[in-house]
Amino acid sequence: MLKYKITIEYEGTKYHGWQRQKNLDTIQGEIESALFKLTKKHILVYGASRTDSGVHSYGQVAHFEICNHYNIDEIQNAINYYLKPQKISIVNIELVKNIFHARFSKKKKHYIYKIINRKSPLTIQKNLAWHVILPLDINNMIEASKYMLGTFDFTSFRASGCQSNSPIKTIDSIKIIKNNNEINLIFTAESFLYNQIRIMVGTLKDFGTKQLNPSYMKEIISAKNRKFAGETAPSFGLYLDEIHYY
Amino acid sequence: MLKYKITIEYEGTKYHGWQRQKNLDTIQGEIESALFKLTKKHILVYGASRTDSGVHSYGQVAHFEICNHYNIDEIQNAINYYLKPQKISIVNIELVKNIFHARFSKKKKHYIYKIINRKSPLTIQKNLAWHVILPLDINNMIEASKYMLGTFDFTSFRASGCQSNSPIKTIDSIKIIKNNNEINLIFTAESFLYNQIRIMVGTLKDFGTKQLNPSYMKEIISAKNRKFAGETAPSFGLYLDEIHYY
Repeated sequence: MLKYKITIEYEGTKYHGWQRQKNLDTIQGEIESALFKLTKKHILVYGASRTDSGVHSYGQVAHFEICNHYNIDEIQNAINYYLKPQKISIVNIELVKNIFHARFSKKKKHYIYKIINRKSPLTIQKNLAWHVILPLDINNMIEASKYMLGTFDFTSFRASGCQSNSPIKTIDSIKIIKNNNEINLIFTAESFLYNQIRIMVGTLKDFGTKQLNPSYMKEIISAKNRKFAGETAPSFGLYLDEIHYY
Repeated sequence: MLKYKITIEYEGTKYHGWQRQKNLDTIQGEIESALFKLTKKHILVYGASRTDSGVHSYGQVAHFEICNHYNIDEIQNAINYYLKPQKISIVNIELVKNIFHARFSKKKKHYIYKIINRKSPLTIQKNLAWHVILPLDINNMIEASKYMLGTFDFTSFRASGCQSNSPIKTIDSIKIIKNNNEINLIFTAESFLYNQIRIMVGTLKDFGTKQLNPSYMKEIISAKNRKFAGETAPSFGLYLDEIHYY
């Protein structure tokens, strides 16, 4: 058996997230089904991140093991062929050592959250960004985001159903970049709580639309209470961008 | 009657182009139908550019006249409301003088053609860019594009069915910008022949994949023969970006 690491791009709109579920279309399910068509065997695919329904990816990573009958390009081409017409694409494949694990070997994850800030409805970026109508004060959002950097108990930004043992996480960086009416929020951390980024974005949005003092973010964090944070931003603005490994 | 200029964004994938056609979904048809819902009158909408089936727009411009019962925001909001769930959006509206004409007052048009140059299938940008698998030599494309700048008889780049009186057009600028595997080709001119940009892109692609000498572009132009140019690049990579007016 040989172990392969694959990098996966997908448009998550019509999928019920990454994780395999009976009778529902999921990214993991589609890839495992493509691998079955290639090998006639049930190959398990292990993903780095269980992205939610509607979340997109430029750089999800997964690994699997298959027997050494195939060359590496053949595997990539075959999976992509059998995935058609799915909006899932294996953009990279490499042979890795046996100790590699997509989920447990990872060092850092980068996520991008896309907002379009304008009055008129979205067309080209419908389902690909969050449409925020009220004008956003980006500088206030940037100032507020600085209070989220570092290691905290992020209970205020944790959705019910979160399976993480601890609510303590370390946010390495948050970049907020505006280009015309498109705003990208880029988050980097080793790991996040369930829905943490979407709740952080929903909270930062409030700092953008209301005249909240940026230092109020400290109070939201120290409250350790989900009710103090903002709404959960919609899934379709979120992109798993890149995963770095040891 | 008051005259309004509107700027229209659309994702053209499911439409049969700009121009109204019986029993087919078109951008013009949808906007006229929204205006009918607002006014209960048949208002004609005049577009700057008859974009083809599948072509997208960030900045199509059109004008129409309606009676002065409505305020300007109300008109924009009502059209956008009645357009739902269409992927068409009025992103700007302004009151203009009676002599303004979306098609005849225009000075320059900017188009963007988007290519994704990689092996693996597209997902997020499916129907939003041309997927070119063979590696493109961007510098060769840039050198070849320089021969297209200026005033020429562009018969080699003219599709059959072109209704232009003359094949002579002036290309003001072509910018080719690469960002990772996304290549944007940006064209500026007062006007173009039917399918001219798509044939120019299909031809430039050949300079990118084959080792053609850039100066061979001179011969293609001077041949004045459609057979010398490359294929017509697909419609779904093309975006009407912006129209400038006198």
